[in-house]
Amino acid sequence: MSYIGQNHIIPTQNISVPTLLLNERICRENIAAMCGRAKAHGVAFRPHFKTHQSHAIGAWFREAGVSAITVSSLKMAQYFAADGWNDITVAFPVNILEIDRIRDLASRVSLNLLALDPEPLALLEREVDRPVGIFIKIDAGYGRTGIPSTEVQAVEACLRQMARTKKLRFKGFVAHAGNTYRAGSREEILAIHETTRQRISELGGRYKLEFPDLVVSIGDTPGCSLADNFEGIDEMRPGNFVFYDAMQMQLGSCTLAQVAVVMACPVVALHPGRKRCIVYGGAIHFSKEYIMTSREQNFGPVVQLAGNGWSAPVEGAFMSSLSQEHGIISSRPDFLKSLKIGSLVGVIPVHSCLTADCMRGYVTIEGKQIDHMAGSH
Amino acid sequence: MSYIGQNHIIPTQNISVPTLLLNERICRENIAAMCGRAKAHGVAFRPHFKTHQSHAIGAWFREAGVSAITVSSLKMAQYFAADGWNDITVAFPVNILEIDRIRDLASRVSLNLLALDPEPLALLEREVDRPVGIFIKIDAGYGRTGIPSTEVQAVEACLRQMARTKKLRFKGFVAHAGNTYRAGSREEILAIHETTRQRISELGGRYKLEFPDLVVSIGDTPGCSLADNFEGIDEMRPGNFVFYDAMQMQLGSCTLAQVAVVMACPVVALHPGRKRCIVYGGAIHFSKEYIMTSREQNFGPVVQLAGNGWSAPVEGAFMSSLSQEHGIISSRPDFLKSLKIGSLVGVIPVHSCLTADCMRGYVTIEGKQIDHMAGSH
Repeated sequence: MSYIGQNHIIPTQNISVPTLLLNERICRENIAAMCGRAKAHGVAFRPHFKTHQSHAIGAWFREAGVSAITVSSLKMAQYFAADGWNDITVAFPVNILEIDRIRDLASRVSLNLLALDPEPLALLEREVDRPVGIFIKIDAGYGRTGIPSTEVQAVEACLRQMARTKKLRFKGFVAHAGNTYRAGSREEILAIHETTRQRISELGGRYKLEFPDLVVSIGDTPGCSLADNFEGIDEMRPGNFVFYDAMQMQLGSCTLAQVAVVMACPVVALHPGRKRCIVYGGAIHFSKEYIMTSREQNFGPVVQLAGNGWSAPVEGAFMSSLSQEHGIISSRPDFLKSLKIGSLVGVIPVHSCLTADCMRGYVTIEGKQIDHMAGSH
Repeated sequence: MSYIGQNHIIPTQNISVPTLLLNERICRENIAAMCGRAKAHGVAFRPHFKTHQSHAIGAWFREAGVSAITVSSLKMAQYFAADGWNDITVAFPVNILEIDRIRDLASRVSLNLLALDPEPLALLEREVDRPVGIFIKIDAGYGRTGIPSTEVQAVEACLRQMARTKKLRFKGFVAHAGNTYRAGSREEILAIHETTRQRISELGGRYKLEFPDLVVSIGDTPGCSLADNFEGIDEMRPGNFVFYDAMQMQLGSCTLAQVAVVMACPVVALHPGRKRCIVYGGAIHFSKEYIMTSREQNFGPVVQLAGNGWSAPVEGAFMSSLSQEHGIISSRPDFLKSLKIGSLVGVIPVHSCLTADCMRGYVTIEGKQIDHMAGSH
């Protein structure tokens, strides 16, 4: 069995409750690799910080040369503005009820917001004192939100509204190809990426003469991890890649060696007759996101923790059910025999963004505490 | 349309982000009703505080005459011990890695722990300085964890282990009939409750001569809300009833008038052509728990917020999808027409325990802030 993270010591002796372990080396390698992909494809890199929500991990991006970021809420923008980030896109349709936060941020940083309707733009113009960048949110096939890339009239309505304003600066178009998360293969991810790329770059091309600085921006981790065609794209905004997770492994966007987080869970009950054990680690720690494997709900593959890292997934062992604080691990008898009450078992999160938000902090495998916005005050 | 909570004012003018609204009157009525059921059936009431995790709401229980509580973690036990609760059962198989917390709690409160194996009992005896009560965790049909009620030998092994100790006091048997959550009807809930009751009361009966103070304890909200036969049961530990939620409504354990929490979500985008709108309110606010309605995943029924409370569910409107921060509400056109960007929409949580844990706090419909352990420091 090969272990990830050689030469590191997991401080298992200090772990008594569910703990999100972070391998800093892998995390930094993921950051460097995505910086490298952006550079190689000639696109600007504006990583999404909603996955880690951490000042400390943000600093690793800064050390890798990153200066512009994406966040998913105005509160998160304030959290990173407070840490010196001054070029921030809030990749969420602007919530006009938070006008006070928008005003505050616009006075301190270069702030970009998303809109898909003229109405909030008129309100923003009235309410902000300082210039704000506006991206038009485009739906290039995902179907969640945004103006469909073919609905040029709706795009024009937003542009006309901005033309009437003094403080709103049209920045470009953003799309999020979240439909890659429903892909069944690497080929399907690439096909979705290609459709997204064609649609949004065509839209961008239509306006590049009129707006020469226009930015065409895309964002999903599967596409940004695998694709090689970024023609007509100016910026990428992936987030999940910083940790990856079991869902990305299943999609084929990453390998096990790129997964940077694992939850350590204490074993509290053994049921060898039922081929399972109970761990302390439930829905409030992992979230209830699951993948399907062998037609069963899988809340996370199980790994073994060791002095120097974690193992590959233990064959046939997975988190099969989550209550509020309990997790049920289903497993073959041989793995269960290796466990005792009080053992620690590792579980790869299915969706690391949600798990990190539940956990509100990390511990590196060297034992260093790492902040998360949700755990800060 | 009838509104819940007449004569109260929802402070919508102060809400700008997803906010978990709490109707204090309904919540206090739920507490009073369950106190009444326990009294009527002659069982002690030890409510589970994992649902609300709040000092303020705990105080409403205290005002209703409650003095003994259940929690789901040692950390939660410390949170409530700090607020003066001194009779606490931690309804989770004892996690021996947290021996420091156990020692601390045993020195301050009357502490009961759960075990289903002799091994942690031996360790506890060695490690604690002060007496600790021990409940044996019984599986009466749920199948999550516990000693199956028929496996008397395993029960005896725990009893023998305790007989060798000086500090461990055998308190009785606990079961959690979580299988009522899979019931398809009120009748099925009652049938599961009856099976649970028979199995655990039979086990209790076997030991009542030897241990006259033995407590037979059961816990699920559906059974405790609906059943009328508690013969052989000494204690009930329901938790969810304090708020109820959409899952309990679907199960038939409560009516709409008993649901005490609703999430207020700002509308950020309208897509009438797709029969949906986008709200600020996602997986990190609700959790990803869902129910199935009309063969579709339903992450929460939609209600209208009004000056005096909230409405009955809007027909055909529900949260159909959740991303990290976005929610998609599917709806008929007429309801969507009533919304604007910046409107607030109400959503009944599917599983209020998990939603409360995500939100880490509440605001009453009169505008009062209410604490939650996860938001405290």
